Amino acid sequence: MPKLSEKATLMPPSPIRKLVPYAETAKRQGKHVIHLNIGQPDIETPEIAREAVKHADIKVLEYSHSAGIESYRKGLAAYYSANGISVTSDEIIVTTGGSEALLFAFMTCLNPGDEIIIPEPFYANYNGFAVSAGIHVVPVTASIDNGFALPPISEFEKKITPKTKAILICNPSNPTGYLYSREELEHLREIIQSHDLFLFADEVYREFCYDGATPFSVMNLKGIENNVVLIDSVSKRYSMCGARIGALVSKNKEIMQAALKFGQARLSPPTYEQIAAEAALDTPKSYFDDVIKEYVGRRDLLVDGLNKIKGVRCPKPNGAFYCIAEFPVEDTEHFCQWLLESFEFEGNTVMMAPLSGFYATKGLGKKEARLAYVLKKEEIEAAVRCLEKALEVYPYTSY
Amino acid sequence: MPKLSEKATLMPPSPIRKLVPYAETAKRQGKHVIHLNIGQPDIETPEIAREAVKHADIKVLEYSHSAGIESYRKGLAAYYSANGISVTSDEIIVTTGGSEALLFAFMTCLNPGDEIIIPEPFYANYNGFAVSAGIHVVPVTASIDNGFALPPISEFEKKITPKTKAILICNPSNPTGYLYSREELEHLREIIQSHDLFLFADEVYREFCYDGATPFSVMNLKGIENNVVLIDSVSKRYSMCGARIGALVSKNKEIMQAALKFGQARLSPPTYEQIAAEAALDTPKSYFDDVIKEYVGRRDLLVDGLNKIKGVRCPKPNGAFYCIAEFPVEDTEHFCQWLLESFEFEGNTVMMAPLSGFYATKGLGKKEARLAYVLKKEEIEAAVRCLEKALEVYPYTSY
Repeated sequence: MPKLSEKATLMPPSPIRKLVPYAETAKRQGKHVIHLNIGQPDIETPEIAREAVKHADIKVLEYSHSAGIESYRKGLAAYYSANGISVTSDEIIVTTGGSEALLFAFMTCLNPGDEIIIPEPFYANYNGFAVSAGIHVVPVTASIDNGFALPPISEFEKKITPKTKAILICNPSNPTGYLYSREELEHLREIIQSHDLFLFADEVYREFCYDGATPFSVMNLKGIENNVVLIDSVSKRYSMCGARIGALVSKNKEIMQAALKFGQARLSPPTYEQIAAEAALDTPKSYFDDVIKEYVGRRDLLVDGLNKIKGVRCPKPNGAFYCIAEFPVEDTEHFCQWLLESFEFEGNTVMMAPLSGFYATKGLGKKEARLAYVLKKEEIEAAVRCLEKALEVYPYTSY
Repeated sequence: MPKLSEKATLMPPSPIRKLVPYAETAKRQGKHVIHLNIGQPDIETPEIAREAVKHADIKVLEYSHSAGIESYRKGLAAYYSANGISVTSDEIIVTTGGSEALLFAFMTCLNPGDEIIIPEPFYANYNGFAVSAGIHVVPVTASIDNGFALPPISEFEKKITPKTKAILICNPSNPTGYLYSREELEHLREIIQSHDLFLFADEVYREFCYDGATPFSVMNLKGIENNVVLIDSVSKRYSMCGARIGALVSKNKEIMQAALKFGQARLSPPTYEQIAAEAALDTPKSYFDDVIKEYVGRRDLLVDGLNKIKGVRCPKPNGAFYCIAEFPVEDTEHFCQWLLESFEFEGNTVMMAPLSGFYATKGLGKKEARLAYVLKKEEIEAAVRCLEKALEVYPYTSY
């Protein structure tokens, strides 16, 4: 049998999904598993999107344009404009999820062996796309002590080598929930400009900013327009994770031309889901008002609840729908598995994502876990009660 | 502005899609363009698949499993079994199109710099995935003189180097329509086994075999079960190219485990389209009987028609829905563009795919073009009349 590739070995298993077998066993044992491990909201997909699919007049489910359905791209350009980002439909390629947009960006801009700097903890699947593209992730470590703010630019400077080609940020951040300020982004702009790097920004949580905070897009950083690639997705915005519709957006014509060639090779993004995404553009503002209100309530319940538990600390984020908590345990990998295998309270247990897999630096995040506040308030309250009880009986709790 | 990657330069534009702007201009000029350039059939997607989407009870459009919806994978296993291919649902990963299955196979099995042997002419987008994975395509040339039969195994042997890691075939073949015999495949088996290579087989045209010919799957080649990866797709089978639902199938557990990690990184294939694909499994046999009959009629009209045109020759294939014709011109790239820009007959012109882009060997295929007989008979008849007339007036026709 021939040997698999080096990438097959290097490719990390998803830290979010690797506990799944334990959750399945817990469910078979009759436990109710409260899924705070994954960013799959229980919020309804806008009716307008679902109805569009129901009423799509399709006889032949044809390929669409490799850059995405034209009317959808025009609608997207209008959406960005309404969000203060001025782009034309030619500056947008519709992709199969934000995942594909990131892969296209890596493939188009970076050579194998190039280095990309990413503030850690970061969305674990970035590792997967880095392995696919053969590039090296160089982390700059953010700390729970200041709520995972952007590390000082001097920390980035220290990591720059002749192989550094790009910086990747996620804003608002998965997994930290931190929303970078305009000032922080302006600092990034300087380093991008002075070292002539690419700046990739995953802004898929744009709609989820709380407490009056407003997001500032990298597309509005002056003087680096040709360096910037925006990664986007409808997954979270309209609670349609299963649609797998994203976008790659850039003012850099060379990037767009090259990325389109990758798009042509895979022919087109899925048709039904583009129809849903295009219709979702007309989602009424009241939908988002309700959703934001709901998320703020969930966040407060979860974060305040966690902070009341002895030995737990959890900065309150004002973006996305994740928070990171530090637990009084040696290793959250073990704690999370134990919760599924050996614990139950009121018939429930909690599933969280251990944070080690979100760091590139070995050994970091061992006391931390990511919790997604994507479930109803009753579930979140039950989860908090569950975690409090669990820490009282977990054999390795150390206050 | 930083420099793009080498892949951005190496990535070939789609030879199928690069004439699109000329077609758009022709349409604006009022010409009816008969699209024989692309494998987008006008055959209706089975009603059962479209109805399943209409009636899908979805409130939240959620991620599905990274390997695909379980009930769909079980249904697929039954489909393969009914087609004489014995696999379990664990030996199937649902992918976003056959495209993604091929990319996962390349990434999982091959290192950058490895060589893969492919009989040419081959589906042009294989080049794109080879560039993405950083591997080198080594062609073995098939000839129009024997209808593009598998080249002798001695030709493969000549191309094997220490870097050769795999062979890729498409059977029935896009673009040649050639269906490999069991005997030809047994020859391939020997070379795979003696050199311990991977064998990737794109069998997405399995349903389209004519004149009593039956396809033989590489999954049934004995003794190389761990070397084989089947690439599949619902695009052609159910005329649902826009679904972007494919599959990677292998008995090799290591391959499946590693490919799933690539699957986890991109989360899941699109949900609505999986619902459509699962429902399509129950497409009645009468649908295929009608479709096959229709394609045979179209093929005969097109191939017989082409062979009657002075200076044109076109072997009659018995699989897929493409044929390759040789034209009495210097360069079909120019001829195809001229057809769109400067020719019109009965209000029509014809769009074909020049074949150069389907060869890895420079200079080959310059007199050839691929025609997809995916349109109604009237359109095919009009196309044949159009091509006959065109060759009479094309300034560079040379009988």
